[in-house]
Amino acid sequence: MHTAVATAKVWIASEWQDSDAEGVFEPENPATGEKLGREFPVSRWSDCDRALTAALEAARELETTPAEKIAAFLEAYATELEADADAIVQAAHEETALPASPRLKDVELPRTTDQLRQAAAAARQGTWRRPIIDHGKNLRSCYAPIGPVVVFGPNNFPFAFNGVSGGDFAAAIAAGNPVIAKAHPLHAYTSQRMAEAAARALRSTGLPPATVQMIYKLNHENGARLVSDPRVGAAGFTGSKGAGLKLKEAADAAGKPIYLEMSSLNPVIFLPEGMKENAQQWARELADSCTLGSGQFCTRPNLAMAIAGAATETFMQELTSAIASREPHALLSSSTRDQLDESIQALQHAGATLLTGGTKVPGKGYRYASTLLQVSGRDFIAAAHELQREAFGNEVMAIIAADEEELLRVLDHLEGQLTGTVYSSLSGADDTMYNRLEPVLRRKVGRLLNDKMPTGVAVSPAMNHGGPYPATGHPGFTAVGIPTSIARFTALQSYDNVRPERLPAILRDQG
Amino acid sequence: MHTAVATAKVWIASEWQDSDAEGVFEPENPATGEKLGREFPVSRWSDCDRALTAALEAARELETTPAEKIAAFLEAYATELEADADAIVQAAHEETALPASPRLKDVELPRTTDQLRQAAAAARQGTWRRPIIDHGKNLRSCYAPIGPVVVFGPNNFPFAFNGVSGGDFAAAIAAGNPVIAKAHPLHAYTSQRMAEAAARALRSTGLPPATVQMIYKLNHENGARLVSDPRVGAAGFTGSKGAGLKLKEAADAAGKPIYLEMSSLNPVIFLPEGMKENAQQWARELADSCTLGSGQFCTRPNLAMAIAGAATETFMQELTSAIASREPHALLSSSTRDQLDESIQALQHAGATLLTGGTKVPGKGYRYASTLLQVSGRDFIAAAHELQREAFGNEVMAIIAADEEELLRVLDHLEGQLTGTVYSSLSGADDTMYNRLEPVLRRKVGRLLNDKMPTGVAVSPAMNHGGPYPATGHPGFTAVGIPTSIARFTALQSYDNVRPERLPAILRDQG
Repeated sequence: MHTAVATAKVWIASEWQDSDAEGVFEPENPATGEKLGREFPVSRWSDCDRALTAALEAARELETTPAEKIAAFLEAYATELEADADAIVQAAHEETALPASPRLKDVELPRTTDQLRQAAAAARQGTWRRPIIDHGKNLRSCYAPIGPVVVFGPNNFPFAFNGVSGGDFAAAIAAGNPVIAKAHPLHAYTSQRMAEAAARALRSTGLPPATVQMIYKLNHENGARLVSDPRVGAAGFTGSKGAGLKLKEAADAAGKPIYLEMSSLNPVIFLPEGMKENAQQWARELADSCTLGSGQFCTRPNLAMAIAGAATETFMQELTSAIASREPHALLSSSTRDQLDESIQALQHAGATLLTGGTKVPGKGYRYASTLLQVSGRDFIAAAHELQREAFGNEVMAIIAADEEELLRVLDHLEGQLTGTVYSSLSGADDTMYNRLEPVLRRKVGRLLNDKMPTGVAVSPAMNHGGPYPATGHPGFTAVGIPTSIARFTALQSYDNVRPERLPAILRDQG
Repeated sequence: MHTAVATAKVWIASEWQDSDAEGVFEPENPATGEKLGREFPVSRWSDCDRALTAALEAARELETTPAEKIAAFLEAYATELEADADAIVQAAHEETALPASPRLKDVELPRTTDQLRQAAAAARQGTWRRPIIDHGKNLRSCYAPIGPVVVFGPNNFPFAFNGVSGGDFAAAIAAGNPVIAKAHPLHAYTSQRMAEAAARALRSTGLPPATVQMIYKLNHENGARLVSDPRVGAAGFTGSKGAGLKLKEAADAAGKPIYLEMSSLNPVIFLPEGMKENAQQWARELADSCTLGSGQFCTRPNLAMAIAGAATETFMQELTSAIASREPHALLSSSTRDQLDESIQALQHAGATLLTGGTKVPGKGYRYASTLLQVSGRDFIAAAHELQREAFGNEVMAIIAADEEELLRVLDHLEGQLTGTVYSSLSGADDTMYNRLEPVLRRKVGRLLNDKMPTGVAVSPAMNHGGPYPATGHPGFTAVGIPTSIARFTALQSYDNVRPERLPAILRDQG
């Protein structure tokens, strides 16, 4: 007997309403493989169409809404999330198999509410508007909201990058743009629960209710149509390169800005003199970092690089045993596991050697053995594109270069990355090599690190969670770090000889 | 008998060298239709390939070049241009038929050298780098050069937007990027002469000689290949929508930023109460502005809007006779004239009525009768896209709306523009209508003006020479206005836990 389950409602034009659905999906618990007893709609275009019309109206209302009110909403939303934290964490834990504590409850949710509050402060301060007044020419400029923003959240952060609560959301709202969130289907109920908190905050602070809207799932064609619709101001996307590039193509063709955070291997380079001192410790740090959260972070290290030698052999032995000993946890979904497996097969096919792992783990939950691959610098260079295929999950590939020159050539073949890291001797004995490698690496990465793993992404004004293509679509923008991330969702506007009383307040003469 | 003419050399990898040419072209004087006795090459891909390799090397050298030296080059270049001003102005006058004075000598060249000097000041001050230091997290960020920049200059500004001397050039160099200039073939010799001045300035200031390179002409395929090459950091383009969109498609597909300034109709709206007071004066101002320089400015008014009524009839009568009485000057080329004619035919086909002009002017030079078209608001709305075809030259179309509601709907159908202007009564009698129209217009334009024509584009930090698509490719950037325009040619870079001595000077702790 099948118990009838009500399909969840989409949140459009201020109302939780029935979706014009072309289908439904039922989320499961990836730790058990069991259905969670909930049903969510796959929206047809008409859902998007209604959301876009409502968003455009909200955008117009927000243009004259005081920044203080927008800030108040962001803060009220953070408070609402905290008030419902237990239920939200439980929902996310069931849907993602990520640990309820510390990961979801003590790290990701506080990070998310902190981000909303930082966005509130930025909205209030208004530094993102960067007003310029040229009295001599009676010409003034500032940045203004870009219009309705569509945010596609990823599978791996149910809170901090969620379309209805994460970094893109916070940045878009802070600049006075309404958001149409496309929740990730892998944490649909979590998203619904968060959206309900957003709805309460909208009501209590009196913002236009269609400032936030949410749908759960779309087919590819409607996704492409959504980011290229004339009513849209811009889009933000975090996810796979395949899905991101399809959206990019559609948005680009329509002249709509789209900010993508797609894929990154986050190379970590271990220099030889330091390797002699720290081979075992570095191996353990790397193993910890690339298996943390089953490696399901945008900035977990997927590539390690070192120069051949005795110390590097010690490092590789320790790394192999450390990774082999890591108990694999459930991945986010069966398809996450299948794609990881496919990528690991493809990397071997392209020339990498399997040192440990490389198999699905039988039994409950979608688990994969933590995996280490190895390839020589020469072989990497020979198939550099194929060997830079992303394997999203608990996997790392070591590139062992014959010498410094080969390591430099490996870096020359590196595609754009979010991060790049160099570990080196504290004695200064690696500094000559560092100075040769650094400029090459620097140009390829958004964030350059020394002596620490790249996995954490601090919410700081100095953060760059961005980088050259294909890590993102444009190296001038960051997805994390307020107020810099707000710039993505703004348009530059000049006022030339506009009469004083008609100027926006921020551009009027003082006093 | 044909006198053998040496084909001009391209400037690649520090040398004036023979192009690997797939053909040649011979510029003519558009005021006479006569050949100017010079021959320029159409470059094959190998020219681009060599230039890209040299540019990449220059980019690496520039990374460690002090900003002071870059500033000194920009200033020396301005001085070199001034020293050769007579010859450069004469060359541009012959190639473009634009008046030597005041236009070229007294307006455009001083504007160009001023822009280079403003860029020098910006390079020296370094505000474009926007450093942020987060001591608590030991995280630092700043903007850095994006890499070799390809600049495609337009036909209509031989100095101020030239790939080898104009706004994109100055902005790219100020941020420490080498430039590969694609000169416009319609002022090839002018460009050569300017590039020679740049070469002298590079020598005297000791910058890498491949900091600036120049070619004259490419086929479309090689242009697309150039902006999408892995060695390129970004591209700037000013020109037609057709050519711009082809380059955009190629650059987008390769994940390379491209900044386009394409087409704009620059609507000017005349409100009814002011119209009653100023119909004749406003008509003359508009006629002056849309025929100035034969209307060959990015921001000349191509669209006028008013509400039907007796005053508007007076306005249209005055406008018709003012435009009919304007003596047409030579356009930039025969194809400029042919395209203007085609567009004016197409606009009539789409529903506009010809009030005056609409014909090529026989005799010497590529001249076209100054043209006024008219269409009702209703007819405009019915064919809004076709009626927003750009007619580049001395043409303007008046849209006469039945009432305020229709005018609002016309604005709703307006595509993205560089500028939008409102003329209204100084009495305040139009203010209610202004307040209804302004938000709609504001969202569609980069620069909003009151009570003056949009044609002039001041080089001011508060300028926005940009706007929503299709005026440009991204509403967050400006092509004119230092330092804001520099942001286009920069990448964001974070330093996370990087050892103090390895940080760029701008991110080190002070004291």
